[in-house]
Amino acid sequence: MIVVLDASAEEGEILEVEVRIRGFGYEVYRSTGENCTVLSALGPPREDVKEALEVMPSVSRVVLVSPPFMLVSRAFKQEKTAFSVGCVEIGRGKVVLMAGPCAVEDRDSYLQTALAVKEGGADILRGGAYKPRTSPYSFQGLEEEGLKIMAEAREITGLPIITEVLDQHAVEIVARYADIIQVGARNMQNFKLLKDLGQLQKPVLLKRGMSATIEEWLMAAEYLVSNGNHRVILCERGIRTFETTYTRNTLDISAVPIVKELSHLPVFVDPSHGTGKWKWVPSMSLAAVAAGADGLLVEVHRAPKEALCDGPQSLVPEKFARMIDSLRGVAQIIGRTL
Amino acid sequence: MIVVLDASAEEGEILEVEVRIRGFGYEVYRSTGENCTVLSALGPPREDVKEALEVMPSVSRVVLVSPPFMLVSRAFKQEKTAFSVGCVEIGRGKVVLMAGPCAVEDRDSYLQTALAVKEGGADILRGGAYKPRTSPYSFQGLEEEGLKIMAEAREITGLPIITEVLDQHAVEIVARYADIIQVGARNMQNFKLLKDLGQLQKPVLLKRGMSATIEEWLMAAEYLVSNGNHRVILCERGIRTFETTYTRNTLDISAVPIVKELSHLPVFVDPSHGTGKWKWVPSMSLAAVAAGADGLLVEVHRAPKEALCDGPQSLVPEKFARMIDSLRGVAQIIGRTL
Amino acid sequence: MIVVLDASAEEGEILEVEVRIRGFGYEVYRSTGENCTVLSALGPPREDVKEALEVMPSVSRVVLVSPPFMLVSRAFKQEKTAFSVGCVEIGRGKVVLMAGPCAVEDRDSYLQTALAVKEGGADILRGGAYKPRTSPYSFQGLEEEGLKIMAEAREITGLPIITEVLDQHAVEIVARYADIIQVGARNMQNFKLLKDLGQLQKPVLLKRGMSATIEEWLMAAEYLVSNGNHRVILCERGIRTFETTYTRNTLDISAVPIVKELSHLPVFVDPSHGTGKWKWVPSMSLAAVAAGADGLLVEVHRAPKEALCDGPQSLVPEKFARMIDSLRGVAQIIGRTL
Amino acid sequence: MIVVLDASAEEGEILEVEVRIRGFGYEVYRSTGENCTVLSALGPPREDVKEALEVMPSVSRVVLVSPPFMLVSRAFKQEKTAFSVGCVEIGRGKVVLMAGPCAVEDRDSYLQTALAVKEGGADILRGGAYKPRTSPYSFQGLEEEGLKIMAEAREITGLPIITEVLDQHAVEIVARYADIIQVGARNMQNFKLLKDLGQLQKPVLLKRGMSATIEEWLMAAEYLVSNGNHRVILCERGIRTFETTYTRNTLDISAVPIVKELSHLPVFVDPSHGTGKWKWVPSMSLAAVAAGADGLLVEVHRAPKEALCDGPQSLVPEKFARMIDSLRGVAQIIGRTL
Repeated sequence: MIVVLDASAEEGEILEVEVRIRGFGYEVYRSTGENCTVLSALGPPREDVKEALEVMPSVSRVVLVSPPFMLVSRAFKQEKTAFSVGCVEIGRGKVVLMAGPCAVEDRDSYLQTALAVKEGGADILRGGAYKPRTSPYSFQGLEEEGLKIMAEAREITGLPIITEVLDQHAVEIVARYADIIQVGARNMQNFKLLKDLGQLQKPVLLKRGMSATIEEWLMAAEYLVSNGNHRVILCERGIRTFETTYTRNTLDISAVPIVKELSHLPVFVDPSHGTGKWKWVPSMSLAAVAAGADGLLVEVHRAPKEALCDGPQSLVPEKFARMIDSLRGVAQIIGRTL
Repeated sequence: MIVVLDASAEEGEILEVEVRIRGFGYEVYRSTGENCTVLSALGPPREDVKEALEVMPSVSRVVLVSPPFMLVSRAFKQEKTAFSVGCVEIGRGKVVLMAGPCAVEDRDSYLQTALAVKEGGADILRGGAYKPRTSPYSFQGLEEEGLKIMAEAREITGLPIITEVLDQHAVEIVARYADIIQVGARNMQNFKLLKDLGQLQKPVLLKRGMSATIEEWLMAAEYLVSNGNHRVILCERGIRTFETTYTRNTLDISAVPIVKELSHLPVFVDPSHGTGKWKWVPSMSLAAVAAGADGLLVEVHRAPKEALCDGPQSLVPEKFARMIDSLRGVAQIIGRTL
Repeated sequence: MIVVLDASAEEGEILEVEVRIRGFGYEVYRSTGENCTVLSALGPPREDVKEALEVMPSVSRVVLVSPPFMLVSRAFKQEKTAFSVGCVEIGRGKVVLMAGPCAVEDRDSYLQTALAVKEGGADILRGGAYKPRTSPYSFQGLEEEGLKIMAEAREITGLPIITEVLDQHAVEIVARYADIIQVGARNMQNFKLLKDLGQLQKPVLLKRGMSATIEEWLMAAEYLVSNGNHRVILCERGIRTFETTYTRNTLDISAVPIVKELSHLPVFVDPSHGTGKWKWVPSMSLAAVAAGADGLLVEVHRAPKEALCDGPQSLVPEKFARMIDSLRGVAQIIGRTL
Repeated sequence: MIVVLDASAEEGEILEVEVRIRGFGYEVYRSTGENCTVLSALGPPREDVKEALEVMPSVSRVVLVSPPFMLVSRAFKQEKTAFSVGCVEIGRGKVVLMAGPCAVEDRDSYLQTALAVKEGGADILRGGAYKPRTSPYSFQGLEEEGLKIMAEAREITGLPIITEVLDQHAVEIVARYADIIQVGARNMQNFKLLKDLGQLQKPVLLKRGMSATIEEWLMAAEYLVSNGNHRVILCERGIRTFETTYTRNTLDISAVPIVKELSHLPVFVDPSHGTGKWKWVPSMSLAAVAAGADGLLVEVHRAPKEALCDGPQSLVPEKFARMIDSLRGVAQIIGRTL
């Protein structure tokens, strides 16, 4: 960390800051210039130490020279994290496709969509049994009933299933059914939930919060990994910007190469929530794969116009199947399979 | 709701849309112009109906003509919501001051700060026993031990206490000690937590999410009220914008008059988190009161440079006491007390 | 346009609004529901009419049901705009590559880079003779001297040149040398400049403003087209968001398919300014082409570490040449050439 | 500046960086820790040097430890800038009120509004003769005809006038009539225009760009001051955020105390554009004055519903006069007059 002192700081004050820095276990080096004095505090970056120093009257500013995440960083672990879920390998050469409807609405329709996306080329089935809804008056999901339907779809298709958990009370039950547990954007900083999931023996897909910086997102992943769960997938799903007329969110494709450089964890993209409109999904899926995404999370619904939630962002199975060919071509160009 | 059809929509398609709208229980009126046909669907605005219509191929766009919140709106209840917490009246003429440190760190220091802010003019004591921290390695709060210290401070000062609940597991214990329960910005859309708090007999202070629109914020309050809890305080605490060098957040003072027009609920402002620096707290407190805030939530710490969290945004008790006089003057100008 | 009236509007007031709407030349249809009255005003969407109606006391809200741009819209002209600059066809099957250094710094280095990017596969040479700089103390460009060097590079390489114009005074001189004139992000709403360029017989590349909505961007293009210049290229270059640590801007790749649906104008992407770091340029270039961009604007510099401006976002010619192969592969997958 | 090197940087590379830093005229001090080496470069912060260093392969990051603006900073000039325009003192104890319609539309109506705002308490008359309009089809202002009407209003009322200049071509003519020249938000980074205005003997009011950071805003002011014009007023007018339903912009009141600490220039607030709705203007005006603004720029229109531009954000003269009393009270509380 770099501690910049006020131009007016006197020797006694500078010494006081140096003592405080050493008290946190850092080595300190001083550089004195014409206009200001700068202290270099050598040791791990810590937000709390930064805050403690910033309130000292002679301190003008504290700069963290390296990011605050550790276990999820490439500096800590150079090789990419990869693991298997059923027969599906995540984080290796193959771009993984997770597909299915936003919400599980009824048995027949879910099973039909499941079969259709399998045939279309999906590797993993998605579906929501517990739904976070902005309005208390909207459909909130079938809960355990929905999980059972998904489990049946797994039986029939042979594909692993991923579904979202909304709260700590449901962790146990969701973990009983799901192969991968999804943490939604609104829960990215639900730290208690992250801790509980960190202690679980199930892979977790962690969506980026709607207005989360890349650093905050990786710190949220650090909660999972530091609690013992190393099978974490990061998923970009669009961030909130001033453009709200034509897209629900702005899909931040640049997060893919950036996070892949900063972290060893696999990075997925959700082009359905990311844009909010099914018609942008194929082109944004292509862009995500071209940018190096390790997988996609796509909403596919047999009959989007009857969907109880997020219909506007769902592809029909035929469109999903049709876009796979182009995705495969792009994957090959950058040395991957799909 | 207004349903705008594609210019190319044919009679059969228009009829199909009209039938679907009526199926949701709305009356439909058609306006046919040279370039497009517009259907007016008369009835309550519903996000899910909007979504269901937007996927129909001949529908170009659906516009909600009135906001989706109901019970929290002025349209539903004209007179301002007001209630008492101990001897403190919230939502009436007096601007209410909630003050105290970010986190409860140890008994002595908390009690000292509590006495100092009481003397300074605070109406309610704040303090955190459970702390949401970006880093898993930061101090996470004293938990129940902290709640006990706050309860002791209430005994000594006679002031009601407010503290944050982070997760459903802690609702019961926090409710046992606190007079007002705070929902933090990161939990504003933790819908399960909101439901649980909605069923509680305790006032709730609901902070605006870091990137929540005013509409989403009021919908979150709707979760509380529609589950039975009518004693809700809204609290603006700064939103996330591109300006990150000089403030942690951008305090949206304009949210105060806007929310007061849209809703009957009392609106508070947190200038400490809103700016992230104690030196902007007095001027932003003055601005908030001038704009009509029903109260303030201010961080005050006996010795901010030793604080384990959020030191940089805490006032010392002397500065807190000193700003009260100006606040009182401004309150009087706009016909209130403090 | 849809005019939503207050629930309390009385017949006399409603009639007054209807008269005013008709006064602007619109047909009016009224829909009366239990809670509110809605007037449909049929005719072209106009911001000024919207504003004029919104100040009427009984009007609650006015909604434009179609976007305000006209000449640049697909509704006005279905077929894609395409044109030639020298031997280069823009807006047709080939993805066009514009490349070169941010600023023209000296003759030798510019000519060397020009030859290198030509060899690497560039179609058009870029370079800045007039530079918009945040600081008055930074290098501001070689001005006409720079234009002459670019003209010489055109002679040598046979490639057309594109360069930025900063102000009206320089339009004439820039037009004398350049084959395509660039309008930078900071000038996207410099309406006087747009008008002047609209009257010119030179293609214009219009960058999206740093915080411009897609609608504002297309309205800026409308200034060019409505003044007579139909050869307009739109260029996405990253928007300003809360993420400022790892990228200078957030490149909005989703703008590519959206603008291509809304408008017939060709859409380019600038991955160099869009991310601010050369190392993200190859993956974002791939993403842009995969998403359907009609071309790229890439910063390439022979020796970025000696560049007088924007060094961090420039590729060396070797890296530029190396990424072309993958770009070509992706272009083919989506049915284009490069 | 602080130059953080890669953990893997070797001695030869470190020396190379040190040589380069010294080449820019800085002293260099090295701090070597376990994980990384940090170089402190002592001297003035320069964006171009930062960029030049960041492309060196062994450099991980360069941090400017002090802001890049100079002449406008408090470090350069401690005492607040103050000056007179006619009989009006700007930047001293009195909070200055600039008021009038958005655009000058016709002689009679402008003169009437001018007289009304004078009577209401305005110190300076505002009005637009050249209007920046998003749409090429909207009313663009009366141009010189409008300036003449404003000059006549000055004769009649005795109040100085402020009006906006849109482009370099109009600088001379606007300067001939106006007492203060306004630079609009869209032109904040029109650097050529700023240079021209910097060489003028007229005060300039510089609005903050829609998405300008505080640093960029002060750098724009630096263009004016470094070119010789010291009579600069800064004006906050709302920034672009994700909240677009209830306000046109988010008025950043916190910019007032922040800029007053960073710079000696007077800071005004425009609550009319800042919110976009006249009904929020009185409360936001009170907030701005409470936060320490040196003045306000308010839209007042005799008959907003007939206004040709920005009607929705204009107060009628009666409401303007009525809010003055409360503003005066708040000004007194914080030790100012109005």
